[in-house]
Amino acid sequence: MSPSSSSPQAFRAIDVIRKKRDAIELSREEIEGLVNAYTKGDIPDYQVSAWLMAVVLRGMTRPETAALTDAMLRSGEVLDLSSLPARKVDKHSTGGVGDKTSLVLAPLAAAAGVAVPMISGRGLGHTGGTLDKLEAIPGFNVNLPVAEFRRLLEVCGCAMIGQTAEIAPADRKLYALRDVTGTVESPYLICASIMSKKLAEGIDALVLDVKTGSGAFMKSEKDAAFLAELMVETGERMGKEVVALITDMDQPLGNMIGNALEVVEVVEILRGSGPQDLRELCIELAGWMLHLGGAAKSVTEGKEKSAGLIASGQALERFRQMVELQGGDPRIVDDAKRLPQAQHTMQIPSLKSGYLFSMQCEHIGTACVILGGGRERKEDSVDPAVGIILHKKVGDRVAAGEPLATIYYNSEPKAERARQLIVASCEISESAPSKKRPLVHRVIGKSGGAN
Amino acid sequence: MSPSSSSPQAFRAIDVIRKKRDAIELSREEIEGLVNAYTKGDIPDYQVSAWLMAVVLRGMTRPETAALTDAMLRSGEVLDLSSLPARKVDKHSTGGVGDKTSLVLAPLAAAAGVAVPMISGRGLGHTGGTLDKLEAIPGFNVNLPVAEFRRLLEVCGCAMIGQTAEIAPADRKLYALRDVTGTVESPYLICASIMSKKLAEGIDALVLDVKTGSGAFMKSEKDAAFLAELMVETGERMGKEVVALITDMDQPLGNMIGNALEVVEVVEILRGSGPQDLRELCIELAGWMLHLGGAAKSVTEGKEKSAGLIASGQALERFRQMVELQGGDPRIVDDAKRLPQAQHTMQIPSLKSGYLFSMQCEHIGTACVILGGGRERKEDSVDPAVGIILHKKVGDRVAAGEPLATIYYNSEPKAERARQLIVASCEISESAPSKKRPLVHRVIGKSGGAN
Repeated sequence: MSPSSSSPQAFRAIDVIRKKRDAIELSREEIEGLVNAYTKGDIPDYQVSAWLMAVVLRGMTRPETAALTDAMLRSGEVLDLSSLPARKVDKHSTGGVGDKTSLVLAPLAAAAGVAVPMISGRGLGHTGGTLDKLEAIPGFNVNLPVAEFRRLLEVCGCAMIGQTAEIAPADRKLYALRDVTGTVESPYLICASIMSKKLAEGIDALVLDVKTGSGAFMKSEKDAAFLAELMVETGERMGKEVVALITDMDQPLGNMIGNALEVVEVVEILRGSGPQDLRELCIELAGWMLHLGGAAKSVTEGKEKSAGLIASGQALERFRQMVELQGGDPRIVDDAKRLPQAQHTMQIPSLKSGYLFSMQCEHIGTACVILGGGRERKEDSVDPAVGIILHKKVGDRVAAGEPLATIYYNSEPKAERARQLIVASCEISESAPSKKRPLVHRVIGKSGGAN
Repeated sequence: MSPSSSSPQAFRAIDVIRKKRDAIELSREEIEGLVNAYTKGDIPDYQVSAWLMAVVLRGMTRPETAALTDAMLRSGEVLDLSSLPARKVDKHSTGGVGDKTSLVLAPLAAAAGVAVPMISGRGLGHTGGTLDKLEAIPGFNVNLPVAEFRRLLEVCGCAMIGQTAEIAPADRKLYALRDVTGTVESPYLICASIMSKKLAEGIDALVLDVKTGSGAFMKSEKDAAFLAELMVETGERMGKEVVALITDMDQPLGNMIGNALEVVEVVEILRGSGPQDLRELCIELAGWMLHLGGAAKSVTEGKEKSAGLIASGQALERFRQMVELQGGDPRIVDDAKRLPQAQHTMQIPSLKSGYLFSMQCEHIGTACVILGGGRERKEDSVDPAVGIILHKKVGDRVAAGEPLATIYYNSEPKAERARQLIVASCEISESAPSKKRPLVHRVIGKSGGAN
């Protein structure tokens, strides 16, 4: 530890640690100094992890959160998409189970004339990841160089890629450290991590889908709303239009969970069918994207326009075009059998008659991870074919012996573990839940969705 | 970070970090696991520093503090001094300026028949260190093997050495990490650090001198008392007799500051002269050591006996013997010129007439460090000859031009920096301070000194 204790850099780092420990507000320069020095490798992990823990326990002011976001954003490249005439709008979800809205929204908003430069992530914990879903499409390439990303945006209006090495390197380094030091769970750090990456996309506006419920990272609506407000305010401080919808994740979204299965459900939605909750949320989020993207005067108009683009088939055509432009096999749109198929299926019958009263949504997500649909460790590869189709959603009537879900699997022991978890996650009761949870709990920012 | 995130050890470490972060009490096994794994190098610095920051901000319960102390103590060798018939008693100070009591107390208590196995430290920050003072004596060796340490205790009743590699290695590793991560300032961590080292000495009882005031680490009496109570309770939980005296460090103790100069003052005290405050504190602490060491029925009797051992010359003879046995030149006792001598002296006259109203004691300590009497960086070597002699203490009358202090120096620019700091530290006012701060503020433990 001696080299750092004698370098001037480290002396500053310790001052910044001490100030945060003592709940003294840090200046923009101090936060920038810490982020830049850490990104360059000038200060060691053990100093930054102490600082991160102090942030978790002391919190941050709004200016500190904005300064951290800004420093992380500027640790790498910020895309300049000003050559694109359309307004650039992205959507980001805090993560859930069965949440495949991104795959619907990018082509749908693009079909309305909004540019959607979407940089997504992989599955984290029990939640699925957009990149893993896209890669279930044979040939789909999520690793495009920035120049190609820009070209696709010009041609197709949307493109979906993974984080590049150039974008917010500070976030990658900090996230890896947070993951192993118990410092993930801070709304301030979560906000800076999400917003730094999203704002590096060079967007004009952002629609945030902040999940709450048993399948979300923020289980309580209060925590979700706090994070949402933080992100909206941070984005606005940086000159972006940001709105956050607090949406329900107390049960999976839609009926299909698992990478290839979710692509199937995306196509269903784009064809105008598919499950009610997923369709409703896609239209809601698309309404906001169109409104913020200048393609609709109000959210209501945006929703109507979005429904029209689905009904006319234009949204599906845009999806097909995006798949093809990114190297994917566009025939999956008309022939779902061209997607990876699991070798076996297993039905999970209800043990008794009654109503599906609740689902432990996180456990359903974990069941899909166990099947191989997500990663138990970072280095694991993902099996795109496996997953779960739910036949019942919360509030549905079910008879004894009637299937609650079907498991799509390639490994018998994994299927058995997943089955047990799903059975334990589904609570069947004699009466239906008295109150249905709303799909959209609240809208934060942009006058709370009053338009 | 990936190797640790996939090893079972690290998984446990992160659970312990998370629990402390969430203010959940850790079990003895969890604390032991963390300390042992860290000592062995099985968990990385960055996880431990996050945990340390969580401890600083969340605190620890008494059982947690005891478990941490115990785990650190048992990370290395615990001396077995049971072959010595005498009771073993040590004294530990939390650090101050001009505090040379250890050099008086070890031979004084030994002369009364108490064994004093003293393992000391070096100067820290603005404070002096016992080892640095001992090493001002030509030839004095503080690095004795344990067998030799034990032999000297048998022969002389006292021995004074530095921390060995075998004693509390967890503390050395943790301390180095705390130093660079802003996690020094926690009474729980300070308690565990001090008590683990002291209890590894195989002592029966311990007298703690917890300093408070402008020259102490704990500036407020409240903080000093909290730390004192914590250490007393932790020691008692581990079956030791422990008492803590909260003593004044709002001005330097005695008149001399600097390693060789402090040895001169030690000899003065052992000859029955020397400054009043230092003599009084030595007698007070020795009274407790003799009482806890079974050489006196009460503290009062212990104080009387100590005064007698000084008056008779027996304490000084024991000091001379200890110096000789540890390889030092015993002639320094009769001829202070044999100690290292600074090349130059500089008087600091008072700019005006009045009373010395207060001293910024920490700055006086820093002035001595600047002269070379302490370390500005860990790797610095110490100049034993330099230092400061105070001619005035708080409350003394002073005439304009009359010297407040004399600087002993070997470098003109350093002397100038020290002079400025001393001048700024001494507040001269027209009236004397209305209330004299007591030397002993409070006694904690052993029925608060009621005997």
